[in-house]
Amino acid sequence: MRTSKLLISTLKETPADAEIVSHQLMLRAGLIRRLASGLYTWMPMGLRVLRKTEAIVREEMNKAGAQEVLMPSVQPAELWQESQRWEKYGPELLRITDRHQREFCYGPTHEEVITDLVRQEIRSYKQLPVNFYQIQTKFRDEIRPRFGLMRAREFLMKDAYSFHVDQASLQQTYDDMYATYTRIFQRIGLNFRAVQADTGSIGGNASHEFHVLASSGEDAIAFSNASDYAANVELAEAVKPAGARPAASATMQTVDTLHKHTIEDVSSFLKVPASQCVKTLLVEGAEKNSVVALVLRGDHELNEIKAEKHPLIAAPLTFVTPEQVHEATGANIGSIGPVGLTIPMVVDHAAAHIADFVCGANEDEKHLTGVNWGRDCPEPETADLRNVVAGDASPDGQGTLEIARGIEVGHIFQLGENYSSKLNAVVLTETGQSQVITMGCYGIGVSRVVAATIEQNNDENGIIWPQAIAPFEVVLVPVNAHKSQRVRDEAEKIYQQLLAAGVDVLLDDRGLRPGVAFADMELIGIPHRLILGERGMDNGVIEYKHRASGEADEFALDNVLEAIQQKLAQ
Amino acid sequence: MRTSKLLISTLKETPADAEIVSHQLMLRAGLIRRLASGLYTWMPMGLRVLRKTEAIVREEMNKAGAQEVLMPSVQPAELWQESQRWEKYGPELLRITDRHQREFCYGPTHEEVITDLVRQEIRSYKQLPVNFYQIQTKFRDEIRPRFGLMRAREFLMKDAYSFHVDQASLQQTYDDMYATYTRIFQRIGLNFRAVQADTGSIGGNASHEFHVLASSGEDAIAFSNASDYAANVELAEAVKPAGARPAASATMQTVDTLHKHTIEDVSSFLKVPASQCVKTLLVEGAEKNSVVALVLRGDHELNEIKAEKHPLIAAPLTFVTPEQVHEATGANIGSIGPVGLTIPMVVDHAAAHIADFVCGANEDEKHLTGVNWGRDCPEPETADLRNVVAGDASPDGQGTLEIARGIEVGHIFQLGENYSSKLNAVVLTETGQSQVITMGCYGIGVSRVVAATIEQNNDENGIIWPQAIAPFEVVLVPVNAHKSQRVRDEAEKIYQQLLAAGVDVLLDDRGLRPGVAFADMELIGIPHRLILGERGMDNGVIEYKHRASGEADEFALDNVLEAIQQKLAQ
Repeated sequence: MRTSKLLISTLKETPADAEIVSHQLMLRAGLIRRLASGLYTWMPMGLRVLRKTEAIVREEMNKAGAQEVLMPSVQPAELWQESQRWEKYGPELLRITDRHQREFCYGPTHEEVITDLVRQEIRSYKQLPVNFYQIQTKFRDEIRPRFGLMRAREFLMKDAYSFHVDQASLQQTYDDMYATYTRIFQRIGLNFRAVQADTGSIGGNASHEFHVLASSGEDAIAFSNASDYAANVELAEAVKPAGARPAASATMQTVDTLHKHTIEDVSSFLKVPASQCVKTLLVEGAEKNSVVALVLRGDHELNEIKAEKHPLIAAPLTFVTPEQVHEATGANIGSIGPVGLTIPMVVDHAAAHIADFVCGANEDEKHLTGVNWGRDCPEPETADLRNVVAGDASPDGQGTLEIARGIEVGHIFQLGENYSSKLNAVVLTETGQSQVITMGCYGIGVSRVVAATIEQNNDENGIIWPQAIAPFEVVLVPVNAHKSQRVRDEAEKIYQQLLAAGVDVLLDDRGLRPGVAFADMELIGIPHRLILGERGMDNGVIEYKHRASGEADEFALDNVLEAIQQKLAQ
Repeated sequence: MRTSKLLISTLKETPADAEIVSHQLMLRAGLIRRLASGLYTWMPMGLRVLRKTEAIVREEMNKAGAQEVLMPSVQPAELWQESQRWEKYGPELLRITDRHQREFCYGPTHEEVITDLVRQEIRSYKQLPVNFYQIQTKFRDEIRPRFGLMRAREFLMKDAYSFHVDQASLQQTYDDMYATYTRIFQRIGLNFRAVQADTGSIGGNASHEFHVLASSGEDAIAFSNASDYAANVELAEAVKPAGARPAASATMQTVDTLHKHTIEDVSSFLKVPASQCVKTLLVEGAEKNSVVALVLRGDHELNEIKAEKHPLIAAPLTFVTPEQVHEATGANIGSIGPVGLTIPMVVDHAAAHIADFVCGANEDEKHLTGVNWGRDCPEPETADLRNVVAGDASPDGQGTLEIARGIEVGHIFQLGENYSSKLNAVVLTETGQSQVITMGCYGIGVSRVVAATIEQNNDENGIIWPQAIAPFEVVLVPVNAHKSQRVRDEAEKIYQQLLAAGVDVLLDDRGLRPGVAFADMELIGIPHRLILGERGMDNGVIEYKHRASGEADEFALDNVLEAIQQKLAQ
């Protein structure tokens, strides 16, 4: 492709309303343009990236034996009423009334439609398992669309739905999809983690999210440095410390801590690390009008999801009022602690594992030092109440945890009989019995993958595309070609040679000043750049620059194809 | 692909609600399934056809230098208000209100969105011409969706929009698109015609429809047997007969024609051909309260579009009441004619070219024979008032016309400044002036092409796909494979061999009775069939059958690949 045949709309300024780097760079590089809130046009340069991403997804889904279909984007309300989601889904479901006053929606997902198809087309267990997928435009009427394609209203999605006679078959396809997603994100060239996700009432190992690691990610991910264990920080288990608690060595003493009400204040005032302090939080108990104390190490954060699952604690988790704190402890919030408390108490495993610790004295403006469990207060009831932190042992026993932020780009989920039972999707078993089908579903946000890739791969000059989904693999920039026939001729020759060899090359024939052309191509993020100029030609060479590493090289003019192919193969 | 990995849902019975053959066969062959009125799911087998069709369209558009983009399907009302189509478009525009009560529509077309993009991104005449296209799901809220994908509500469309500084540039891209469409439909393997279309107020050679010829087509197309002239019958010019009118040879006589009120009755009663009779129709004149007589040959049909363009005649064309007929002629409708009429009269060229003709006598139950223009009534004012018929001279002077029915699958149109002026899409010219952009648009109904292909290519056994868009090019059916290990092994060997050579082959491993498997594959319409059985293997051969011609053949087992490649290349 020649730039003269391609609309290149780069912007020098960062658009004011673009908050995250992928949104900024997609606008600046001219990959997308905004039509309305949450609605974007893919420009020619951007669409090349989207289509390459889509092609990788399609190839891998086909390899996994999934069958591509294409369902209508507009779906009748009746099916959503059958699944009981018409009311439940809320205002993110874009509802539509047609000219005959019949209700429809613009599908954000297709469980109902595919289940309706399967209940009509599939009769026998012999036709199962089967896995249908589509790559399609979806709509979700976000209340506040933002971050460009990261949280757009209209977006491109790959959604797949599998159907099974039993859980074992579902598990097999689920595992296949896990492996397929892994291959897809590896082929694209992403640093990602498959993260155990909250499965709600279904339980088990039944849902994974695939997260691209990037500092702008909305979710905090904990993952092992030695295995493929990964989980959302909110869900990652904080392993009980191994070994016995250190023995008490200090005497409990009361110290004045006037105006020191936070862990930070107390620890710096007393010159003890936060990990040697405990913090006490009072919440509503499960039993009516009861109050429960939660105790954590000073450097740890309460995990509310874990806390509210504890049988003593009310869900949703509710902190009690300052008045209730005073009533239960005799002190204000900044000075409370486990010693002498008469209310039920749940202590995080890590907090229960320290000796000689500091805590509030249950007397205003006083703390206790040298406190020990089992001596100064009872041996506590313990539980996992905290968020994991970097350096924690991995729950699978292999290595320690690291924490990173992640962007969810894929989700695989064992649906079980949730939709099939409501829509009465059944097959006849080997023995002639009617049996509800077991389902799985598997999504990839294709347009989101493009944005997430940029979040992970950029620098101050622009996007750094992984080669697999770059709009072009190579750009050839002839320098001052308008002044030099021989540069023009040689550029054309090399361009034709690369094209003929199947290299995905862009010839920059705009005749811009070299600096401007280079800046554009760095912003757009093409992985390999060739620069042809008079000076190089005099020496029989063409310059090469690698976008990601900045590495520069020179290729002999009679060896350009081989040299670039070598770079492409690396 | 193996049939065991592909949902094949053929139906024996023709669904009751499917009126046309493509709809019937797409359902019976399991290519599509209905979700709701005008909404269809593409099944795996059908989607293969759609994707192949789409790929041909994309390749040819790219070759023509068009740039692919992807615009949102949901469009803000504001843009449609700017173009004044929000009110005009009527109930076919599916209007949507989002959660913030803002108005949108599900785009049936994208002139507004692309013009909005261009007015923002393109500033200079140097960036023109440019041609953007997309292949996208559209929605048109048909009042009575029917004929399956022929008139569905949700459908796949290729829409392109070109932008120019002047008419000459537009004409060049228009001509390129004409050639591109011709290549697309040729590659698919369709018998089609590019038909001059009504251009409304724009005029000139500014719009062509591409019609697939098929007996079920909604439009009647007239085309030359000797040139590429083609036009909708409603628009095709009926050429004025050449040469002089034959001389009068008969005397005018009045004959009783009791109860003979139609041309058919009169012509058979008097034993003269209908082409020797004239019929007279009275319509409202352009002048208030006036009545005008239209005279046509008895075998010709009035063309209302042509008639109402005549300056003497009121538009829309309105026939007068029986009372008015009697008042103007003294007779009832079945007995009127041009002789002695005092109202203005317009005579079709062909009717004005006959001598010794028969017409009503303007006296009830009587006709005149041997009537001649210029002798028995004045030399008439003539005009082109009729539909062309097969055998008419082609208006371009080459050959004669044939008439066929056509299905519109593509449309190219010179929009001029219609949208660009309303949306103020301008560029700076070479002299620094601001100038409104000139536009063209170019559509192909991709899903409609699939249906139209079936309308043109089918027989009593099912679909006959042109090879280019067949779901598979070849099907290999092993006969009674469940009983024969050597048939299974040999089938697998041949399947792998064809696959490795890039042949798009389906292995029917369902183990159905041969007759059932064959019937399925004929219904689905795979162009080339290979049948492997014990008997053939004993003779070292595999049977071959060509779907379209029914031609049978045998290939040596050690030569299957070469033999099938030869068939594919034919």
